[in-house]
Formats: sequence, C-alpha cells, structure tokens
Amino acid sequence: MAVVRVVLLAGGVGGAKLAEGLQQLLGERLTVVGNVGDDFELWGLTICPDLDTLMYTLAGAASAETGWGVAGDTFAALEMMARYGEEVWFRLGDRDLATHVLRTALLRQGWRLTEVTAHLAARLGARARLLPVTDAPVRTRVLTDEGELAFQEYFVRRRWQPAVRAIRFAGAEEARPTPEVCSALASAEAVVIAPSNPFVSVEPILAVGDVRARLRALEAPVVAVTPIVGGEAIKGPAAKMCRELGEEPSALAVARRYADFIDAFVLDARDAALAPAVEALGLRVVVADTMMFDPESRRRVARAALEAVGVEP
Amino acid sequence: MAVVRVVLLAGGVGGAKLAEGLQQLLGERLTVVGNVGDDFELWGLTICPDLDTLMYTLAGAASAETGWGVAGDTFAALEMMARYGEEVWFRLGDRDLATHVLRTALLRQGWRLTEVTAHLAARLGARARLLPVTDAPVRTRVLTDEGELAFQEYFVRRRWQPAVRAIRFAGAEEARPTPEVCSALASAEAVVIAPSNPFVSVEPILAVGDVRARLRALEAPVVAVTPIVGGEAIKGPAAKMCRELGEEPSALAVARRYADFIDAFVLDARDAALAPAVEALGLRVVVADTMMFDPESRRRVARAALEAVGVEP
Repeated sequence: MAVVRVVLLAGGVGGAKLAEGLQQLLGERLTVVGNVGDDFELWGLTICPDLDTLMYTLAGAASAETGWGVAGDTFAALEMMARYGEEVWFRLGDRDLATHVLRTALLRQGWRLTEVTAHLAARLGARARLLPVTDAPVRTRVLTDEGELAFQEYFVRRRWQPAVRAIRFAGAEEARPTPEVCSALASAEAVVIAPSNPFVSVEPILAVGDVRARLRALEAPVVAVTPIVGGEAIKGPAAKMCRELGEEPSALAVARRYADFIDAFVLDARDAALAPAVEALGLRVVVADTMMFDPESRRRVARAALEAVGVEP
Repeated sequence: MAVVRVVLLAGGVGGAKLAEGLQQLLGERLTVVGNVGDDFELWGLTICPDLDTLMYTLAGAASAETGWGVAGDTFAALEMMARYGEEVWFRLGDRDLATHVLRTALLRQGWRLTEVTAHLAARLGARARLLPVTDAPVRTRVLTDEGELAFQEYFVRRRWQPAVRAIRFAGAEEARPTPEVCSALASAEAVVIAPSNPFVSVEPILAVGDVRARLRALEAPVVAVTPIVGGEAIKGPAAKMCRELGEEPSALAVARRYADFIDAFVLDARDAALAPAVEALGLRVVVADTMMFDPESRRRVARAALEAVGVEP
C-alpha cells in the first residue's frame, strides 16, 4: 500500500473530531494545520484554543463532554483568580493552564509556535502531526452591532450573541504559512477542509499569506466536509453568522465560499437534495452521514472525505 | 490606647506563624517585611515563596499541614507538566500557580513587586500590610560541597542535604529597600525579627542596601525571637547550617549574629540557662515558650516579643 499523506485544515471542536477520525485511518501520515486566529493573551499567557483542542483530541486527552479542554480537568487556579478579583469568563482548567504556562515559557525562550506545538503534542501522545498555519500572530476580529470585538470576547464572553457585521483577520496578510505547512501541502496526496466554521475557523487559515492561492494551485485534490446540516450548524454560530452576513445558511453556501479551491464536497445525507446544485459548481459530491459522536462515526466521516478525493487510506 | 505600629522582618513558614500571631494583636498596625532572596523563576513565572507563605498565612489561607502553599490545594497543573516531561520538584499547587501567573502578568505590566504583593494580599484578606524588602531582584546563592546552588535548588530539590560552605545574596548590595519599607521602619514603635532561619531568611533582608544600618540607627527597639531551641532548629536547616558554617547551633549564636542591631531577645524556656550569656551581649531577655502550633500559641509568642520591647498592643 502506498504511503498516503493527507493534510487537514481545521478549527477547534468540529475539526478536531474529523482530525481524530483521519488519525485513526492515517496515523502519522496525517498533518493537521490548525487555525491560530482564536489565539489570545490572558494573564500574559499565550492561549491557542484551536491548536489545543486539536492536540488534546488527537492525544485522546480531550474532554468528551465539552469537546475542548482536558478530560477531567479541575478549576482550582481559576477559582483563585476569581478570589483575586480577576475576570474568569474564559474557563481555563488547571491542566490546560499548564499547557499555556509551558507554551508561553518556550515561546519566550525563542521557540517558534510550530516547535512548541510539535513538542507538546508529541509529549501528550498525538500520532498525527499538528502545525499552526503560521508562527506569526493572526487575530480574528469580529465587527458586531456592539462594536469590534476580539474573537474570544465575541465567542466566549458574549457567547456569540452580538450580530456579526464583518470579520477580519488582523495580521493575516503580513503573515506567512510556515515552511512546514508549505511542504506538507506540497507533498500531500489530498487536502481536507474540516467541517469547522467557515467564517472564523477555516477562512482565517486561508487568509494567512498565500494559503488560499496555494490550495487553488495544488494538483492534489481538495475536499471540504460540510459544517452545515439541514440549514443549521452542527455546533456553534456558523448558521447564525451566515444569516447575519446576508447568506442563506446551507451546505451550498459553504461550497460556494470554497469553490475556487476545492474539488469535492461531502454533503450530509439530510442535504442530499443539494447535490445537483453543489455539482453545478464543478465539484464532485459524496453524500454521507456526517455526524461525529464517537470514534466509529469519526472514522466513517474521515473515510467519506478520503473517498470523495479517491484516496484509499 | 495609643496606635502602636510594629514591623516584623520575616522569612517563610516560621516567620509567618509569628506574623499571624502579631496580626491577631495588631491587625493593620502590623507591617510584615518579607525576604525575597528565595524568589526564583520557573516556566517564566516569578515565584516568591516567602512572600506567598506570609500572604497565605496572614489571609488564613495557608495549608495547616505544610505551612506553605494554599490549604486544600490540588496539583493537576503540575501533573500535566510532568506529562510534558518537565521537572516537577517544586511542588506548585493549582491555586498557588494562579498567584504566580497573576503576579508575573502584573509585573510585566510594570507594577512594582510591592504593589503586586499589596494587591494580592488585600484581595485574599490579609489585615497586616505585607511588603517585600525590595523591588529589586535579590537571589540567595548557596555555596555547597556540590558547588554553588540557587536557593531553591539547594532547599527544595536537594532538600538542604549538601553541606553549606558560604551563602551570598546576589544583587543585595545594589538593591535598595523600598520607600514603603523605609517609612514603615522610620515610623515603627518596635521592630521584631521573626524566628526564621538567620542565614537564608533574615540575613538576606538585612543585606538589602542599608537595611542593617537602618536597624542599627533606629530609635525604636528591635527584638528577635529565637529560631533555635535546645540546639536544634524548630524547622528547617538552621542548626545544620550553623554547624556547617563553624558555629555551635544555639540561641546564643543567633543573638550574637544580631547583637549589633537588636535590643532584646526572646529565648525559649528550654534555653533559660542561656539568659545570662545573652544578657552579657547587652540585650534584654524575655524567656517564653516559643513553640507556635495554633492561633493561641502564636498570639502568646507575639505577646512575648512585644513585651520584650515594652510595647503593649
């Protein structure tokens, strides 16, 4: 069997599930490129929520209830922060805090985020390779009817309630994808776009330097898995954002946003009726049950994505 | 009753007990000046073990079993650090970690250590005022038969087993006591030296700039409480250090080290026979039971110290 190398572009929780499914099929032949637009600083610590969710999930250490954070984590440090009068709307667990403390220390010692991420993920036992799309700071900013908010302010503190008017990725244009990301893309047999929020998980990856142009120019096929099923997001604000940004929330709308660089699209069985419209965009369509709730269903969706681009793991 | 202002110079666990006893008698009229020679950096965090022990004890939040750390603290973050392959010989609890993270963040924002300490101690509910002796970095270095060790390497990692040849306080000469410390000393009715380790808890305070000269010049009386009882330290390596540095471990040896700036000495009842020799140094002696194991006994020793300098709380 040929060695198949696959690159997955992913945000947090939803993307991590597919990452874990693909890791089951591909092991170390999988490279996951994570979004860093969610990253922020809290108490001087550099926190990378999407990378961490991917890392914990790939290492089998993620909380099954929430999808983010470390399984069985406690919140003693956060309670202490509250005693000190600090705001504690970002739910940092104690084990999770260790990740941020160590990452920040290594970054201050001059390590690249790529190196820190590889070190932490390997120590925790992830088999797939995990890469931040860039080592440069990129910060998603959400322009809402309450003003422009940093991503975590919008997403966690305000629980994505303010209406979104526009989204920008500060620093993305100047940022460059890392050499590791460029070479992973160049040597990939297929690229998969996770069923992550297009607006705030996938597009901040595409916006980094020439990533979108690189995908467009790629000979290897690119497939996206729908994050919208029956007009609703599986999780999070993707459908709400669609509406607020003047689009109808549907898998078709997502396929349209990606049509310039993808070759195939995995549609959920409940949206099978959309297949002709997606095919009309010039895309190969695979219809599958895209719900991921356990290892078996994650593996199933991973298999459907690879099937859509003719890759046999 | 006149407002009595008292300054206590203290190290960690033993000093904190007397600090708490004095706080019972004096409340906010007590100022505690803490040693910073134990401070060190771990994972980029500034850790101040003596200030924290004083703070937690004054706030009623200290662990009763160990004397250091926060009561009921957990060690989830440290376990995670171990998973990442980090050395975890310094037992950082989760609640304690929050203190270091917040302190480091505030210091990086430009706060002085004095301001950070005041903020944290007030939030936790300490009534006494807690001051680091200086805002400058002072680091106790222990020259041992295994080479020169940073204080925590010697004390925690090597459990004070290497034989001590000499001790130095890097940065102490260039450091200055803070304006807050100078004014607290200038307005004190009495100064108390805690029954802390003379070599590594009290002397690194005295070594900061002109602190020792200031105490010598003070009109207000200065009293020290013995850290050595019956030739042994109540806790820690004070007696062992005495022997290694060529002195007989005794309360008298301690009184001699302090004789240039103290006026009175509290001797434990078991060492009553030493009273004439201590008095021969020109010191007023009070003999008392100096064991502190509960709030009542802490108050008792605090009362004996104040009595030795004629202060009625």
